[in-house]
Amino acid sequence: MTTFTETYFTMTETDAITYAKSTLSFFADDAELSCNEIGDGNLNYVFRLVDKGSGQSLIIKQAGPVARISDEFKVSPDRNRIEHDILKIQGALVPDYVPKVYHYDPIMNCTVMEDLSEYTILRKAFLSHQTFPHLADHLSTFLVNTLLSTSDLVLGHKEKKEQVKAFINPELCEITEDLVYTEPFYNCARNDVFEGTLPFVQKEIWGDGSLALETAKLKFQFLTKAQSLLHGDFHTGSIFVTKDRTKVIDPEFAFYGPAGYDIGNIIANLLFAYVNGDQTIEDPPAREQFTTYILTTIRDIIELFKEKFIEAFYDQVTEHVAQYPGFLEYYLAELIADTAAVAGLELSRRVIGLAPVADLTEIADPTKRATAEITCLRAAKVFIVNRNDFFHGDDFTRVIRENTCREAVQ
Amino acid sequence: MTTFTETYFTMTETDAITYAKSTLSFFADDAELSCNEIGDGNLNYVFRLVDKGSGQSLIIKQAGPVARISDEFKVSPDRNRIEHDILKIQGALVPDYVPKVYHYDPIMNCTVMEDLSEYTILRKAFLSHQTFPHLADHLSTFLVNTLLSTSDLVLGHKEKKEQVKAFINPELCEITEDLVYTEPFYNCARNDVFEGTLPFVQKEIWGDGSLALETAKLKFQFLTKAQSLLHGDFHTGSIFVTKDRTKVIDPEFAFYGPAGYDIGNIIANLLFAYVNGDQTIEDPPAREQFTTYILTTIRDIIELFKEKFIEAFYDQVTEHVAQYPGFLEYYLAELIADTAAVAGLELSRRVIGLAPVADLTEIADPTKRATAEITCLRAAKVFIVNRNDFFHGDDFTRVIRENTCREAVQ
Repeated sequence: MTTFTETYFTMTETDAITYAKSTLSFFADDAELSCNEIGDGNLNYVFRLVDKGSGQSLIIKQAGPVARISDEFKVSPDRNRIEHDILKIQGALVPDYVPKVYHYDPIMNCTVMEDLSEYTILRKAFLSHQTFPHLADHLSTFLVNTLLSTSDLVLGHKEKKEQVKAFINPELCEITEDLVYTEPFYNCARNDVFEGTLPFVQKEIWGDGSLALETAKLKFQFLTKAQSLLHGDFHTGSIFVTKDRTKVIDPEFAFYGPAGYDIGNIIANLLFAYVNGDQTIEDPPAREQFTTYILTTIRDIIELFKEKFIEAFYDQVTEHVAQYPGFLEYYLAELIADTAAVAGLELSRRVIGLAPVADLTEIADPTKRATAEITCLRAAKVFIVNRNDFFHGDDFTRVIRENTCREAVQ
Repeated sequence: MTTFTETYFTMTETDAITYAKSTLSFFADDAELSCNEIGDGNLNYVFRLVDKGSGQSLIIKQAGPVARISDEFKVSPDRNRIEHDILKIQGALVPDYVPKVYHYDPIMNCTVMEDLSEYTILRKAFLSHQTFPHLADHLSTFLVNTLLSTSDLVLGHKEKKEQVKAFINPELCEITEDLVYTEPFYNCARNDVFEGTLPFVQKEIWGDGSLALETAKLKFQFLTKAQSLLHGDFHTGSIFVTKDRTKVIDPEFAFYGPAGYDIGNIIANLLFAYVNGDQTIEDPPAREQFTTYILTTIRDIIELFKEKFIEAFYDQVTEHVAQYPGFLEYYLAELIADTAAVAGLELSRRVIGLAPVADLTEIADPTKRATAEITCLRAAKVFIVNRNDFFHGDDFTRVIRENTCREAVQ
């Protein structure tokens, strides 16, 4: 008889069924369970269990002992504890936008949660150029509620410090520090640059000392600025959607960092969808419709974020000095500048670094792929170097429009 | 028989003798111990034990259950654990400049350490206008070695995060957040402003909205910027001196914060000694000699800090991106700007807030006291508002000279 109460081991699909039957009270005693491991992420095993009779289902997400992204990253299963605790916090702040959590097991390092099988991963949906009219509204609410409520603006400073301590996340932060803030900006052996994009990268990224200096400043900001409890990996692969609903998953990278990190991340990933659509949709009206949808969503995320942030600030702020005239404007301006910078970093690292995105790699035509990637990099440089010039949603979309290439420019 | 192994209680002098005899192996068995409680701080009891026969002595520093500064501050005795751990870290980084630690007791919340009775508290020595020729050299070494080695420039980022976690210090940080960053800058009931200084404070500090806004930005920097493991209370009352030696004590406020915090604190406290000398030394050459010594020390601390920091940086830096051209200059410029800002905050809070300094309160003549305090506040405003203009030691001394009042200007 398999026991789950003594030491951790990575489960098979059969183990997951045994686990559900012996440990959880979710399914009926006579449930006829089937199980599939459906994980396509890099760090975890994801088991989907379904009761054929009732149709009830759930997910068991188990942390693997080693990050699946690469054997070079050893990541302790403590990330599963962090993920569970964050889902609980987010469940209180944004219940509509996160999966329900049923159970956490610190021995098997797994979390049992709501099955979102009727949802699609947003990155995948964007690859077939679907659009989601409520996305900007949902994501801006998620961002405001999680980033404001966990900051020193609202949370008591003692309680905030206890949260900082609880979510110190050295291993997953190291992945970000290396893959986002360091390796893309020099000719690091672990980078993986597409042939057609390489000359641009060599000249305009690795050859640009002033860009490198800005990325160094931003890395130290990431290392030191404990502003808000971040999701930490807020890209289109961490978002599940239906036409009307949105769920944010996978918060295992969570930690206290610069609030702009999450917003910049999603802006960059929307831009990957934009260049994919721009290069691969043959029909001009359909192309225009999709790329306009993406740009509108980027603009709306920034504008709705600010609008909802200001409203929530006046409603919830507890810190005396934050109420001095001019402070809110200062705080938001810095937050949006950080957003622009992180968008630039994420754009760069997905083109240059170890973990590419399907939005780019699945552009089959090599010239079109290089064109898409160079568009991303041209915008990235402006986002990083001129980050303090960004404040309005239109500032972001203008830079994207201005740097969109019709064909690869070396 | 008194037992020290079960529950915490605040010791009497007699208890301290019993404690030393029963718990420590420091003194000979037949030692004839005397004990005096010599604490003049706000948070702790300090017992000095002497063996009359051998002359050997030591200090037992016990955390009180409530901060002695005011019953309004409840401070947990965990600060004693922090103090002990920090003294151990500093003992490795700057052994010449901290007391030796003999023992730590987590039940009685006390640390047993080297007796520094042959030393004088620097604030007291400055009140009699003594000078210490090696002070800038010693303090700049202390600052560089503690602030650089604990930062992300040198320390591995995972290890640094574990240190951040170990030294989260919510209660003592709250004291700083309230007394340094908040209360002095509005008409808070807990402030304690000298009558002759009050009109200046009302008009030039509480009446200055742009100053208030800058202090709010700085408070959020203090709340969020985990740059270096700070001493956290680095004023002239935390420094013991002889003509040739310097010891830094009382690191119970230690936590990861902006590196400029410690440097700015000592600069401000040197300025308190300067205005005291300037107002109370009758003999012009003696006055000139003392005030020039203080200004030279301020200049030298800044210049020696930068010089030693740059040398140690090239010797010790481990972070790849910190080695990009321009980064060290950027990092130092930001650090010195933070230093100027904190000097301004400390100058303000000691004049306006709950915890004044003897350098000011012991100026007997009311006009001279107000003149000294207004000099501090005039310089403080420049330090805070124009903090980004400071980089050289002379930038600091020039502002002090330019704002030194010969008589109170309202």
